[in-house]
Amino acid sequence: MTDFNDLPAHVWPRNAFRQEDGVVTIAGVPLPEIAEEYGTPVYVVDEDDFRSRCQDMARAFGGPENVHYASKAFLTRTVARWVDEEGLSLDVASLNELKIALAADFPAERITAHGNNKGTAFLRACVTEGVGHVVLDSEQELVVLDLIAAGERRVQKVMIRVKPGIEAHTHEAIATSHEDQKFGFSLASGSAFRAAEAAIRAENLDLVGLHCHVGSQVFDAEGFTMAADRVLGLYSKIHRELGVQLPELDLGGGYGIAYTEDEQPLDVDAVAHDLLTAVAKTAAELGIDAPVVLVEPGRAIAGPGTVTVYEVGTVKDVTVDEGVTRRYLSVDGGMSDNIRPALYGSLYDARVVSRFTEAAPISSRLVGAHCESGDILVRDASYPADIETGDLVALAATGAYAYAMSSRYNAFGRPPVVTVRAGKTKLMLRRETVEDILSLEA
Amino acid sequence: MTDFNDLPAHVWPRNAFRQEDGVVTIAGVPLPEIAEEYGTPVYVVDEDDFRSRCQDMARAFGGPENVHYASKAFLTRTVARWVDEEGLSLDVASLNELKIALAADFPAERITAHGNNKGTAFLRACVTEGVGHVVLDSEQELVVLDLIAAGERRVQKVMIRVKPGIEAHTHEAIATSHEDQKFGFSLASGSAFRAAEAAIRAENLDLVGLHCHVGSQVFDAEGFTMAADRVLGLYSKIHRELGVQLPELDLGGGYGIAYTEDEQPLDVDAVAHDLLTAVAKTAAELGIDAPVVLVEPGRAIAGPGTVTVYEVGTVKDVTVDEGVTRRYLSVDGGMSDNIRPALYGSLYDARVVSRFTEAAPISSRLVGAHCESGDILVRDASYPADIETGDLVALAATGAYAYAMSSRYNAFGRPPVVTVRAGKTKLMLRRETVEDILSLEA
Repeated sequence: MTDFNDLPAHVWPRNAFRQEDGVVTIAGVPLPEIAEEYGTPVYVVDEDDFRSRCQDMARAFGGPENVHYASKAFLTRTVARWVDEEGLSLDVASLNELKIALAADFPAERITAHGNNKGTAFLRACVTEGVGHVVLDSEQELVVLDLIAAGERRVQKVMIRVKPGIEAHTHEAIATSHEDQKFGFSLASGSAFRAAEAAIRAENLDLVGLHCHVGSQVFDAEGFTMAADRVLGLYSKIHRELGVQLPELDLGGGYGIAYTEDEQPLDVDAVAHDLLTAVAKTAAELGIDAPVVLVEPGRAIAGPGTVTVYEVGTVKDVTVDEGVTRRYLSVDGGMSDNIRPALYGSLYDARVVSRFTEAAPISSRLVGAHCESGDILVRDASYPADIETGDLVALAATGAYAYAMSSRYNAFGRPPVVTVRAGKTKLMLRRETVEDILSLEA
Repeated sequence: MTDFNDLPAHVWPRNAFRQEDGVVTIAGVPLPEIAEEYGTPVYVVDEDDFRSRCQDMARAFGGPENVHYASKAFLTRTVARWVDEEGLSLDVASLNELKIALAADFPAERITAHGNNKGTAFLRACVTEGVGHVVLDSEQELVVLDLIAAGERRVQKVMIRVKPGIEAHTHEAIATSHEDQKFGFSLASGSAFRAAEAAIRAENLDLVGLHCHVGSQVFDAEGFTMAADRVLGLYSKIHRELGVQLPELDLGGGYGIAYTEDEQPLDVDAVAHDLLTAVAKTAAELGIDAPVVLVEPGRAIAGPGTVTVYEVGTVKDVTVDEGVTRRYLSVDGGMSDNIRPALYGSLYDARVVSRFTEAAPISSRLVGAHCESGDILVRDASYPADIETGDLVALAATGAYAYAMSSRYNAFGRPPVVTVRAGKTKLMLRRETVEDILSLEA
């Protein structure tokens, strides 16, 4: 642990800054002002951070249209508009995600639809709304989509999701290209080839490429390159045996970000360069045209630019062993606004953002206000001993899968989401109230 | 595994029944009819099951007022009314839970307020609304509540939450009486005694008892009795040294239920009898009046009477090892409507409810429709090989901590909750729509 007053640049939003008075600002807006105006907890999104990461990805992968922002990380109409304005494409994984994108006037032809069990209504909406790509995940889906497209007298562009059999070094729940999981067609068993053949033969489907996804929070470029290599082998087989050159190759997402000071985010430029070079080289060796590489970052775009600001409430020293104490710092949110520590054992970087802290660090645990002892935000921490009730603490890099997976446990309403840019704040999502909760009662 | 067409009575709702045509009914209502009318996924609540478990608890613990239903398991206005009509008391653990209870006209004097970090607004509402008990969790809270009560010229009844230092055999996240956790005052260190002394001396607080909570999903009566014994030691010390006889003892919740055929629910009658006998005996030995024992079941009341009905979508056989396959059955919900398998590794009993199944069982996995490979509802199952797309499958015992912890991941709207009683259905909570999700956008 370096100085607790630092804000490690690779973890915190690009426009986060600690002023001379100790107060942290994002895009020039002091976080205590946001807490005062909107209450706590509150998510604060650095809009320029989000947009700049869209631009970085677009540059690295040869154009914004090759980069599909993964909605599941965090989607609102505003987010969809940002993605559209930056020229990126968009992944959706449910009918409602598609509806939100369309409600933001996101162009349907730049949308790709995912899911292991899309359901007829979602597939039909994809066809009728003119969604650019549907990524087929099962034989059943292939047949159903072909029928729907026939009924609508359309030809639907599709990709085939392939399991290349790579085990990425990540949490099991979010590692998605090994064989024993629900997504895609196995490369090894030949079912991916058979699906490609069926899609090519289907009258109302137009197969434009194969898709694979190595996992989430991947820090190791090797997995992507190995997956690309294996999948290109199938491109070559399809070319040889079926006479079709597939123009696109979707390598999914999974670009790891730094949640803690010790972690280093995956270097997107370097990985993109290596990946595109490897794809070109392998394609040349196989005697096929190199397909355009598409990628699907979600977390790597939405994650680092957002912080969650909490107010410290109860402070309690607990004896955990003879002579050993742990300070429990309770905040006014918890597992309802960020399930990731409880669900995946995820780590976070927390700092006091309302002032400088001076005291020496002591063994600490940052916990939420839920009626559950597993409601822990940071399990093993070393924080200054002078953190006290009323201080504002922020967790960094909460832009992905925090709001998106938030619950109303203990009837906590969801916190608001506030965007900041050039010294100005704007409310993106208002705080949920008990009236919102009661509005579902019949 | 016995016959897959069975509905193990200790796991399924009390009024669940498989008809001669193979269709499962609850309280006389066929589940396929509910699926047809309300769509899937849908939670179905057996109202009489819920009420009968309230009555069982009331009988076991010497009167309904001694039993506090724990809101966090599942709370709606309807549920609060049921609890009120059965004469039980109610636990709340947030300002919004209190508001929902009051919106149902639940009598405030039968409400107990919990939480490690209640916050001033919640504490103030407890005082002004006349909440029966506030369970104090920290020294800071004791001081603040005394001040608030003074300002309102009221005397607030309180209890002190004590950590008796018992490790219950349960998932770490939900084991709550060991020392290294956020709740309560340590018995061993003397801080619980000091808190009791401070509460007795505080002018605007009226200490009526001590509270402890052994954990959740406890199957072992021993933990409760040991905790009671230790806490009664403190009653005796308070009596001896401070001259005060505390009239109540709250032993919390944690009564385990059966999620699978192999589990046996805790025998509430037997545990209550043993517990009350032990408390009386220990009190007599200590020379104090035996306090009235209060308990706080949530899951044991709300859990067993509810099932979640899904429709099977994609069916996919996956080769997991040479010659070994696993069938992936995808349903139209998942970790958004039930996070417990992903969060705690919880197990569930799933059955086809729309017809008889006949085929021999094969290695299967029941997964959701979310864009995440950890979206697994039942990880290692053995289900009949004739389950197919369009079948309705229900998970039993989903009444507690499923809806309560539900999210909108992938913008899935929450499923509706339908109650059934005496052949009739009633909508308790309507399905969330994309309009509900968009309504938070500023």
